[in-house]
Amino acid sequence: MKLKKSPLAPRSFPKLPPLPGAALAARACGVKYRGRNDVCLIAFDPGTTIAGVLTRSKTASAAVDWCRAALRGGRARAVLVNSGNANAFTGKAGSNSVDRVVKTTAAALKCKAGEVFVASTGVIGEPLPDARITSALKRLSADLAADNWKAAARAIMTTDTYPKGATRSAMIGKQQVTLNGIAKGSGMIAPDMATMLAFVATDAKVPQALLQRLLAQAADASFNCITVDGDTSTSDTLLLAATGKAKHPRLAAGLALGDPLLRDFRRALGDLLRDLAQQVVRDGEGAQKFVTIAVRGGASGRAARRIGLAVANSPLVKTAIAGEDANWGRIVMAVGKSGEKADRDRLSISIGGVEVARNGQVVAGYDEAPVAEHMKGREIDIAVDVGVGRGRATVWTCDLTHGYIDINADYRS
Amino acid sequence: MKLKKSPLAPRSFPKLPPLPGAALAARACGVKYRGRNDVCLIAFDPGTTIAGVLTRSKTASAAVDWCRAALRGGRARAVLVNSGNANAFTGKAGSNSVDRVVKTTAAALKCKAGEVFVASTGVIGEPLPDARITSALKRLSADLAADNWKAAARAIMTTDTYPKGATRSAMIGKQQVTLNGIAKGSGMIAPDMATMLAFVATDAKVPQALLQRLLAQAADASFNCITVDGDTSTSDTLLLAATGKAKHPRLAAGLALGDPLLRDFRRALGDLLRDLAQQVVRDGEGAQKFVTIAVRGGASGRAARRIGLAVANSPLVKTAIAGEDANWGRIVMAVGKSGEKADRDRLSISIGGVEVARNGQVVAGYDEAPVAEHMKGREIDIAVDVGVGRGRATVWTCDLTHGYIDINADYRS
Repeated sequence: MKLKKSPLAPRSFPKLPPLPGAALAARACGVKYRGRNDVCLIAFDPGTTIAGVLTRSKTASAAVDWCRAALRGGRARAVLVNSGNANAFTGKAGSNSVDRVVKTTAAALKCKAGEVFVASTGVIGEPLPDARITSALKRLSADLAADNWKAAARAIMTTDTYPKGATRSAMIGKQQVTLNGIAKGSGMIAPDMATMLAFVATDAKVPQALLQRLLAQAADASFNCITVDGDTSTSDTLLLAATGKAKHPRLAAGLALGDPLLRDFRRALGDLLRDLAQQVVRDGEGAQKFVTIAVRGGASGRAARRIGLAVANSPLVKTAIAGEDANWGRIVMAVGKSGEKADRDRLSISIGGVEVARNGQVVAGYDEAPVAEHMKGREIDIAVDVGVGRGRATVWTCDLTHGYIDINADYRS
Repeated sequence: MKLKKSPLAPRSFPKLPPLPGAALAARACGVKYRGRNDVCLIAFDPGTTIAGVLTRSKTASAAVDWCRAALRGGRARAVLVNSGNANAFTGKAGSNSVDRVVKTTAAALKCKAGEVFVASTGVIGEPLPDARITSALKRLSADLAADNWKAAARAIMTTDTYPKGATRSAMIGKQQVTLNGIAKGSGMIAPDMATMLAFVATDAKVPQALLQRLLAQAADASFNCITVDGDTSTSDTLLLAATGKAKHPRLAAGLALGDPLLRDFRRALGDLLRDLAQQVVRDGEGAQKFVTIAVRGGASGRAARRIGLAVANSPLVKTAIAGEDANWGRIVMAVGKSGEKADRDRLSISIGGVEVARNGQVVAGYDEAPVAEHMKGREIDIAVDVGVGRGRATVWTCDLTHGYIDINADYRS
């Protein structure tokens, strides 16, 4: 099945500038696909720190297990990613494959095994043909170049309908630093399971402990606020490497996230992750509409996010949006099922900026016409005030369409 | 949109015998639908105890609020149910409607308001035209008869494609008692929200506190083990009334659920609720396959149920079943995302009785042919051993098909 490019795709892949201390290469190794690149190597200069956020799945892949252990070292020289095979649910053979890939990469780049990070995405339950990857490592190392971001973004695609990348710059003191990132993911991947992978690098010099705190906070307001179908991959991986090439005031490992020195970097990192996360949603399987759900009045920010995700994951809300139906009753239902505190009689809902319900009742003289018009667009905005406290969160999702069923049911593996 | 009868429907509505102490009536009141019964009254003789399990939704309807309060009294003389309008998210007007309906019913049956239970299902956010109901109460009371179970089951339908009923008998000591029940629900109800309603009566004489414990336990292994789309209605209501007409040994309020005197009654109640619950799943919107997911090896029974529901609610698992694809990788994914403890390397999965994966890997020489054949049937059996402890649970669901999208997206309210 050839997938058509999502109607919600950005116009084009952005121009990612070279990032000092990072180089990339992509090759066609024939892991599964023919005639396209399917392995990418990102190499970092010595001194690079790394932070990561990994899937919470209790059945995580061998590659995720490896990364979790390697993050304790906190140093990175390489990230090696393949598409076509997830190396998940492959037992001991799977971790042996990881060991071989890591060892060969470390040898090619003359670094320690613990400085090599790996990620795999694609078919699960099939042994990873790792020899096809390891035999290409010399050529991959030889091909490393600073301007291969787009090629890398393409190599990690599975059923994505477009490559995903983003770049931002930020000031730390008087020094400008760059952040580049690539991602993949489009809901769950036919014929198997989805995976969200994102790799971000910056030339800022950030101690590992601080980098991890920065990433965790930014991931919480971006990748942890998106959903396509509520399903969680065994392989979700988000890595942030800091090459330390930029000359800016020293950042102490214990620096508070609120420190003014970090302000612009935090803004840029948050912005970049949100951009990548939204690109993943815009490529959601079968997606025809991009949906923003802003929740306020929650008992806490966390509660507001849970309410937002309950709305975003509700099949009834998602199908109503697909049907361009301003069905606010289903939003009420989803708020109620989230399990978080909500005051039915203070609940307010707006769609496309028009208040539909206030204090638990449809607004007097509610005119559906402008709301119905809004529902016909590509970008749907839903705002919910649950009337309990001051917690806020925004989550992003897409609609649930016949296209989703086509991709996931009608396509036999 | 005229809905075709589900291919998973039982052959016919069972013959429900008269139940001493209970009488029913149904009428066409024009709450919303034309030309069909849409209100039903179930009346009980004095001395009837009642237990209930109500939606956990934080945006529950006014009727649910009323029932929760009335259950504290523990006595029932009437259950009044309407379809066509859920009286949910209707603010103060909604609870005023409930008050009027309750008062009129109490007057008609010469009982206390606190002995009247109500339930509403249908469109939400619209005021309940309660005068159409209250004005029919005299005629409803006059029509009360012991053999109206099927008419009552029909009157509470919304987008259900068939009426749902079940009957069982049980021995308490040397006395036979009867249990009759009716239910409605088919996932969430287009164009609004779904509701699962079930009303069960027995002629056994059971003190309220014991009845509540019996019902909670049986609901946990039946209605709390089904899912169509993971969405929770604001109005879900399950009531169990005991008229006390049967002459059996006295049951003390504090009797242990494990007491031999209760054994057969518990079996019958569990069996009846499971039957009704499965009938709801078999009428799931767009359902083409009935799916049983048996989980064992969980850290506890509760953990096993959560794992089962994670599998049952996964859009990827449900679409794979719709596509007749024995995609066990998606089952692994869903187990992993449940958040419950699972041992990836001891996980085993069987489909249609054939072991597909064992100890975290596909079984050696796995032959997909018999599994693929099983996937073509109407009844799909999935068994998962998560390899952690001794907890077990079985849950039931249906597949996710184009029919679900048709009903919920393409049908405009």
